[in-house]
Formats: sequence, C-alpha cells, structure tokens
Amino acid sequence: MSDEATSQKLTELAKRRGYFFQSSDVYGGVGGFYTFGPQGAALKGNLEDAWRGRFAVEEGNMEIDAPTIMPEPVFESSGHLDTFDDMLVECPECGESHRADHVVEDNTEYEDAESLPIPEVEEIVAEYELVCPSCGAGLAGQAIDDFNLMFATNIGPGDSQPGYLRPETAQGIFVEFPRLKEYARNTLPFGVTQIGRAYRNEISPRRSIIRTREFTQAELELFVDPEGDDPDLSPVEDVPVRLYPATEQQNEDGEILETTIGEAAEEGIIASPWIAYYLGVAREWYAAVGVDMDRFRFRQHLAGERSHYASDCWDAEGLIDGNWIELAGFSDRGDYDLSKHAEGSGERFTVFRQYDEPQTVERASVDPDMSYLGPEFGGDAGAVADALESLAERDREAFSGDVVEVDLEGKSHEIPVEKTGFAVEDETIAGEHVTPHVIEPSFGVDRLLYTVLHHAYAEDEVDGEDRTYLALEPEIAPTFVGVFPLQSDDDLEATADEIAAALRAEGLSVTYDDSGNIGRRYRRQDEVGTPFCVTVDYESLEDDTVTVRERDSTTQTRLAIDDLPEALSALRAGDVEFEDLA
Amino acid sequence: MSDEATSQKLTELAKRRGYFFQSSDVYGGVGGFYTFGPQGAALKGNLEDAWRGRFAVEEGNMEIDAPTIMPEPVFESSGHLDTFDDMLVECPECGESHRADHVVEDNTEYEDAESLPIPEVEEIVAEYELVCPSCGAGLAGQAIDDFNLMFATNIGPGDSQPGYLRPETAQGIFVEFPRLKEYARNTLPFGVTQIGRAYRNEISPRRSIIRTREFTQAELELFVDPEGDDPDLSPVEDVPVRLYPATEQQNEDGEILETTIGEAAEEGIIASPWIAYYLGVAREWYAAVGVDMDRFRFRQHLAGERSHYASDCWDAEGLIDGNWIELAGFSDRGDYDLSKHAEGSGERFTVFRQYDEPQTVERASVDPDMSYLGPEFGGDAGAVADALESLAERDREAFSGDVVEVDLEGKSHEIPVEKTGFAVEDETIAGEHVTPHVIEPSFGVDRLLYTVLHHAYAEDEVDGEDRTYLALEPEIAPTFVGVFPLQSDDDLEATADEIAAALRAEGLSVTYDDSGNIGRRYRRQDEVGTPFCVTVDYESLEDDTVTVRERDSTTQTRLAIDDLPEALSALRAGDVEFEDLA
Repeated sequence: MSDEATSQKLTELAKRRGYFFQSSDVYGGVGGFYTFGPQGAALKGNLEDAWRGRFAVEEGNMEIDAPTIMPEPVFESSGHLDTFDDMLVECPECGESHRADHVVEDNTEYEDAESLPIPEVEEIVAEYELVCPSCGAGLAGQAIDDFNLMFATNIGPGDSQPGYLRPETAQGIFVEFPRLKEYARNTLPFGVTQIGRAYRNEISPRRSIIRTREFTQAELELFVDPEGDDPDLSPVEDVPVRLYPATEQQNEDGEILETTIGEAAEEGIIASPWIAYYLGVAREWYAAVGVDMDRFRFRQHLAGERSHYASDCWDAEGLIDGNWIELAGFSDRGDYDLSKHAEGSGERFTVFRQYDEPQTVERASVDPDMSYLGPEFGGDAGAVADALESLAERDREAFSGDVVEVDLEGKSHEIPVEKTGFAVEDETIAGEHVTPHVIEPSFGVDRLLYTVLHHAYAEDEVDGEDRTYLALEPEIAPTFVGVFPLQSDDDLEATADEIAAALRAEGLSVTYDDSGNIGRRYRRQDEVGTPFCVTVDYESLEDDTVTVRERDSTTQTRLAIDDLPEALSALRAGDVEFEDLA
Repeated sequence: MSDEATSQKLTELAKRRGYFFQSSDVYGGVGGFYTFGPQGAALKGNLEDAWRGRFAVEEGNMEIDAPTIMPEPVFESSGHLDTFDDMLVECPECGESHRADHVVEDNTEYEDAESLPIPEVEEIVAEYELVCPSCGAGLAGQAIDDFNLMFATNIGPGDSQPGYLRPETAQGIFVEFPRLKEYARNTLPFGVTQIGRAYRNEISPRRSIIRTREFTQAELELFVDPEGDDPDLSPVEDVPVRLYPATEQQNEDGEILETTIGEAAEEGIIASPWIAYYLGVAREWYAAVGVDMDRFRFRQHLAGERSHYASDCWDAEGLIDGNWIELAGFSDRGDYDLSKHAEGSGERFTVFRQYDEPQTVERASVDPDMSYLGPEFGGDAGAVADALESLAERDREAFSGDVVEVDLEGKSHEIPVEKTGFAVEDETIAGEHVTPHVIEPSFGVDRLLYTVLHHAYAEDEVDGEDRTYLALEPEIAPTFVGVFPLQSDDDLEATADEIAAALRAEGLSVTYDDSGNIGRRYRRQDEVGTPFCVTVDYESLEDDTVTVRERDSTTQTRLAIDDLPEALSALRAGDVEFEDLA
C-alpha cells in the first residue's frame, strides 16, 4: 500500500469515524479550518496531557494560559508586523492567490525558495515560465508581494486599537517575563509552557490538518543564564537519534547520522547543550506517543533558513507521504525576544545575577567645577559637564594629561583636568542585571496528531476478511477499552454495565456498545484504535470471567471480572504485556 | 470584612501568586484581556476537567473541538451578524465609549435597559440628564448606536472572505449537526459538548475576569425529539435548589423559593423537564467544585430578557461583591438554531424518526385529463393542473361535488371533477424527518474560576499572626500537596525528594519547597490554596513518619511515609476525612 493511498484512506476514516473534518462544510467550507470530532478531540486532549506531563510537570516548568488576541505593540517589538510575511503571487487569469516560493519549489530544483529575496524569485518564475497551479496561466511578470500572515482585528469600538491573533503562543509568555520571573523567585534557569491556539493566515492552506490557518501549539520557553546553566546531559546521553546536520544537507552525498545525544553533543554536531537535552527528551517522548522512529529524524536548519537571531535550530521531522514534515522546532533564540520587548516597552526584562562574592570594581567619575564651566561656556556648560561624565565612563585615559578635550556639536573644547573633578574610586557591587537567553522547544499538536494516526494506520486480514485498524499507543488512544454484551440479553447487559462502570471508576476511557454482531463491534473499535475489548458471554454468568481481546494481534484471553480493573490499568501504564495476562 | 474588600485583596493575591493578571501590562495593557499564571492555569484546567467528567463523560455526551474563526454565512444564519449588538454612546467631550444601557441602569431605577428600544434609551438619557462616567460631560442628545460585538477579520489574502471570532462555542456544534448526528447513529437524544475560547468585543469590559473580551466557555448542546425524550428526573429530584422565578421578580415582595428539583418540576415552576434535570446536575456540580451554596441561586429570565426563540431560560448565579453574576445559562432554544442553519445552507438538519409501526395515511392526489385542460385553458393548462394538485392536498372536500373551482391570478375557473383524476389512496410511511430541539446548558469558565476563588478566600489568626488562605476544594486546587524538608539538610532533603516523587507517581499535583522557614512555607501554600502539606523532620529519619498538616484547620497528624500515597489519594477522592487519619 502506497503512502499516499494511506493518506487518502486516513482522511476518509477520519471523517467517517469522528477524528477530524473540514469545518462549516454545509456552507462550502473554508480552507485551513478543521474540526476535531469526538475521537479527534479525545486524541488531541490525550496528546496535550502527555506533553504537559513530560515538558511541564516532569521538567518542573510553569504552565500559563494567555489570550490569543494581543495588541499591536507586542508585534511591533517581536518583529511579526514587519517580517512575518509569505510571498504572494496572484494569477492574472483566474485571480487565485498562491505562495510564490511553493510554486518555485514544486516546479524547479530550488529547495528553499522562501529564503530568497523577492526579485530573485520573480526572476526564477520568469526564467522557468512557471504557471498558475489552478488554471495554468503564465505567472511570468506578475509582481510578488509580501503578505503578512497575521489575522488582524480591532479591539473596542471603532478601529481605535488594532489587535492581532497571535501567530505563536510564545509571545504571550515573553511579554509577561517581568512577572513570570517573580514567580520563579528571580532564579535562572526557569521554564514556562503554554498549550493553546495560534493563527496564520496562510495564502494556500494544504495537506489536511498539516498546514492550517488555526492550530494548536505546545511551546516551552526556557530562560537560561547566557553564562552558565548548562544542563546535565546524563539522563539523555544514551538516547539514539537520527540527525541530518546542515553540513550533510549541503554535501551531495550527505547522509543521516545514526548516533546518540551524548556523542552528538560531545562531537559538537549539536552545539547547544540545552538543545541536545531537549532533542533527547523529545525523541523519547515522540516514541512513547506513537511516532514511528523509522520515520523520524532531527534536521538542522540551514543558515539561510534560520531566523537571523537564532544561533542554532533543529526540527523534529516525521515522514508522511514520502515528505518530511516539521513536527517541532528546537531553537536557541539568544536574548532577541526579551531585548526586543525591553526596547519596545521601556521595561526591564532582566534577572539580577548575584555574584558568589561581592566584587570590587573601579569606577571613574567627574564632578566639574561649574564656577569655571559657567563663565567659560555659558548656556552650553551643562552639556559640557554631561560630555565630561560620559567621557570618564568611556575613556579614563583622556583625563591623564593636563587638559581634556570634549566634542560638542562637532566643535572641540579644551578643559583643564583640575576643573573636571575627575576621580577613580572603588565600588562594591553584589551582582549584575542579565538578559536571559531563550531556548525554545516548539511543538505543533495538529501535525503530531496527523502523524500519529498515519503511522498507526494498518490493514491486515482476519478470518479471511480485510481489516483496518489504528495501532495507537494505549496511553493516547481516544478510547482505552470497549465493553460488549455478547448479545441482547438482560443478564449479559447488566454484567457488562457493571464492568463498564467499574472500569470508568478506575479512570479508564470506556465505550459500551451493544449494537450489531460482535465481529462488527470489534471492527468498529479496531478502526478508531481502541486497544482492548471486553466481551461478556454466557460463560461469564457462570464463572465470572470475560474475554479480553487485544487489537493488533486480535488474540483473546479470559480474565476474572474482579481482576479486570487492575489488569487493564497495568496494561495502560505499560507495566505488563498482554501476552503475560493469559 | 466587606465583600468588596475581599475582591480587592483577591485581585492583589491573584497577581502576586500567579492566578491571573491583566495581559501585556508592559505595554500598558488592553481592557478585557487577562493571562492565567501558573496557579490560575492549573485551577482552570482542573475546573475544565471536572466539567468534562460530569457533563461529557458521565452523561455520555460527545466532546468536539472546533475552530474559533468561522466564516460569515454561519453568523448570517445564526443571527449574530444582525442582532448581536450592544448600545454604544460616545461622549462628545472626552470621546470615551460607554454602554448606554449600563449608564442608564447605574444611574436610574431602570433595571433591564438592554431590552428597551434605542429611542427609548435616548429619551431616558435626556430626561435624567445622564453624564459621561469618565469625564462628567452631559450625554443628552448624543446618538446611541448598535455596536456589533463580534471581532471581525479577513480570511485569506485581501479581504476576499470575511470571518469572525465565534461569540459562543455553540455555533461550532450547530453547523456540524449533519455529521454529528451520524456519529450518534441518527438517534435522539444525543449531546455534544465543547470547551473553548469565545470572544465578545465589549464596549467597556469590567470587573476583572468577569466581563472580558476573550473567555472560555463550556457548552453542552443537547438535541432532543420535540415530541418525546423527556429525561428521568429521579437522580436529581431531591436536589435542593433556591429558585427566583420570573413571577417572583415581578412581585414587589417577591422572594427566592427554597425547594427541590422534583417539586419545582411537578409544580411547573420549571417548565421543561430537561432544564429541570440540568439545573439539578449543575447545582450538585457547582457545590462539588467549591461554589458556596449560600451565595448561589437559579434565576429565571424575564420575558423581555430572553431571546425571542427561547421558550424558557434560567441562569445560575453567584453572589460576588453584593451583586448576583451569571455563571451559566440553561436555555430551551427550540428548533431555532438548526432551522436557521438549514435555511441558510440549504442542507438537511433533521433526524429521521422511525415510527414504532409503519403508519398508513390517506393521501389525496389528482391526475388531470390534459386533453381536456389543454383546449380549455391553452397556455394556462399547466398552471391549472398545479392549482388542482395543491388544492387536493389542502382541501379534499372541494372535490366532493360535480365541479371544482380553482383560482388563477384572481380569476375563478370551474372544472368537472371527472376531468381532474381526483383520488384518495392509502400510503404506508416508516417515519418522518424531525428537526430536533436544542437544550443548552452554557457555562462560563473564567467567571466560575473567579467565584470559586472569591468564595474560598478566608482570613483568620494562627498563633497570634494574621493568615490568608484559599479554602479550595481538594479536587480542583492547583497544587494538592506541598512537601518540605524541615531545614537544609542532605538527609531530610533526600527523604522529602523521595516522598515527592512517590506522590507524583500516584498522580497527585505536588510542590516541593525548601526555601524559608517552615512557617513561611505553610503560609505560601495556604495563600495558593494547597489543601495538605507534608514535612520531613529528624523524627522522620528515625521512625519513617512525617507530619501532615491540613490547610483550613491547620491541625497536624503524623503518618507513616509508606501510607502517604494511599492516604492522600483517599483524601483527594473524598473517601476519608482528615480527622479520621490520626
């Protein structure tokens, strides 16, 4: 079965069984907006809980929940207002809008057209005589424009205050840094997470829920001291990883390296120890929630692909339909975000780093004799005094002679050093204000959900019949166990009801189904990925045992009803294997 | 301590301890947008989980997750585009915008100005010489405008497709009804829930997180057969409720009735059995998550307050600062929503109701003799045939004589009955297509969070010192247990670490704190509402016991370390009381 066939079948199954479907279909739908049905919403919730457990709770990070609409000054500072653009080209014939870089990438050998300047992309379009993907009309000569991807709106009556839907959850964390650091008791490193909606007004959304206009991110912003705070890599050093570094991507016969986090950090393949740490944690986590590790890698951004402020960036990628798609980005953003917001808001975005011992530093200062400067410089005397002060801080050597020279509006003035009150004194300081650097692991939830379903999709033959099933991990499957009475019978149904209630009380997600023959009920649960089914039959009424069936192998075993809650909980926690239950 | 003093102290505590605070403060903030800090996000998550457990899982309803941006046709059909307005008045002096109905309500005896027509409100403003709440300038003569409360944006490049941020999560459920009913196997009743963001561009947001521009709703849309599907009230009949029916509100000495759900339903005080059922469920649930039942009631909407399509509506209200605020609405919406979307989209929003037995109905029809009508009526022959057909369906008595009369463009024509082919025949039908009615319990999450904190806020004196604590229910407190080593000591810390890990493995939310003296650490946890604290002291190293302290009573008891996970889990589940642990 080809990979693309899987995608088609998965989309059909997703719609029919309640995973996801295009929203507002009855009104013709709108590109890039999807609704998660009952199964999809449950799967998404389970993935979010699993992420929260690993990246917030277990790592000891704080989770916050900020609004999705933010005022314009936030995005002036972050740079999104100026630079968060895609290249837009409109077809002169049909009027359809397209991403010019995608048109180039899909039809030429250029692989990263997004990083090229617009005039160059216009030249490529003309040179290759590229055409409109919708109607086939030539695009040569059409102007390519920067199109800002933020959804704009107005806050309050009239258009008094522009606001934007956040293009990433991160900004809701960055702008609150001055308060968040208080919650962290002013101690680095500390991490803040957020799971929530983000919005990008894509020119042409595509590929199901992989590139949508409204999506869910799970982001961690880790604030670290730029001169320290390296993590302990020992918990992840043996984690095996497949890495595709920039150097290999640029080699003609470059290859994917099979190594471990420990080795990759030691050899400098992953430069930042924090990035190395989180690649290790992420690799283990992705495997635990069901991403196939044979279709998973970490790819380093090429220099041109990276934001100018990021010193290093790696993507987690999953293989879908023969394409590697981005699942998460791990980026060392330096002090860019906090510095920009400090500049834009005039507030302090720093943490006070106390020295182990107070330090003594020499500080040069002046105390000018104004009874000399006044008569000498008149109205300019104050300015001359300021210039002397700034010069003392900058260049104390200038005061080593008899006279010192200062520039004032391009004119040079000489002042006797004895009139400046120049002095160098010792000062004791307890520490300094530092702007933390940001390490950002940023996960896309919708893409992960799609990848998990795609990698779980399987077909086989059972008892001579074709079967489709989703081999989802028990921890994240929307339903953990189906409970069935074998057939319509009051006694069977009463027992099945009791079992369902007992399993729900144990905290398990249970579906009760009594409609259709038992084979059809198994198939229904197979198709939505329910790992286990419990069937109550007439034997159950005699010996208080039931049949438990495992999804992937379809093997069955009989267990005592009283043992069910504990046995199924152990299966969910991964403490036992199904084979061991027999 | 006055109630308003509580609100002020709560707002300060919320900011300092990480419950909630105004967003983007470093840029001056924007009215109506709040960020939930680490404690607030955890509390909100716990409230959402509790709601999901009760209203989705336990009730057997399906949860979905739809986009927050929806296209314009959705809101054309729902009526929001035309009528989701507030009355806007702009001050001629300072330019500030205000809600005209609020200005009237705050300064006159009118209580429900929102339901008055605009010209009448303009007259009241003039008559009472009402002034701008910001600058005191007179507002008489200022035009009052309808201001639509939806946030507008554009989807895709240019302004090709208008979109709006949903003003309620409900529309994301209604528009998908044709698919959702398939998931429910076309069987009524079935319920669909959604927890998510909704947006209202309030003219003047006020009162902290009670009236914001972006907020979280938890909504249940229950689709019921208009001719059946009444619920079994027995599980809620004994639930005690305080009701404030419309009739009592209109009486000068009207009062709040203390009754039970069963009685109120029987006496017709609550007309709809479904509304009665959900008021009972909601009352128990609100009590369980910590709303003080002495500050809680259900109030029926007055006729003028209700949407024109709703046949009955009750609000759950909590008392805050001497004001009753709406926490939830329970509304019988009839077939309004589904009919409107059927009309707007041209799709079918019905469920096929199969009769218990196929029914036989008589159907009258005609089969006109065109060889007679043709020569007789020429070009009008077809129209006459249609008129005969419609008449046969409408009034079969008209065919009881020798001739039948039909009107055509105001002119009457006589046709011999024998030329009409009139016949009455039996027809067997299996069922009919019905448009379900909607019962909507709609909960505000942010308001609930505020109410829970407000009702939990308490002050007392412990060991001669003032103490502030939040008496939150253990089930929803952001942190369930604090674990402290008594003082800085490797052995104490190692044991405390182990205990914290064991409790986390049990699924409890744990805070580890080793900074400051033990009294300060207790106070810190009291202030954020942590129900229990465990302290490891030197005795612990000898006999493997620890001190467990309860928040509200501050009483302490010693427990064996090995028993902690089970004992604390039992406390969280409410299976034991703290007093019983000693």
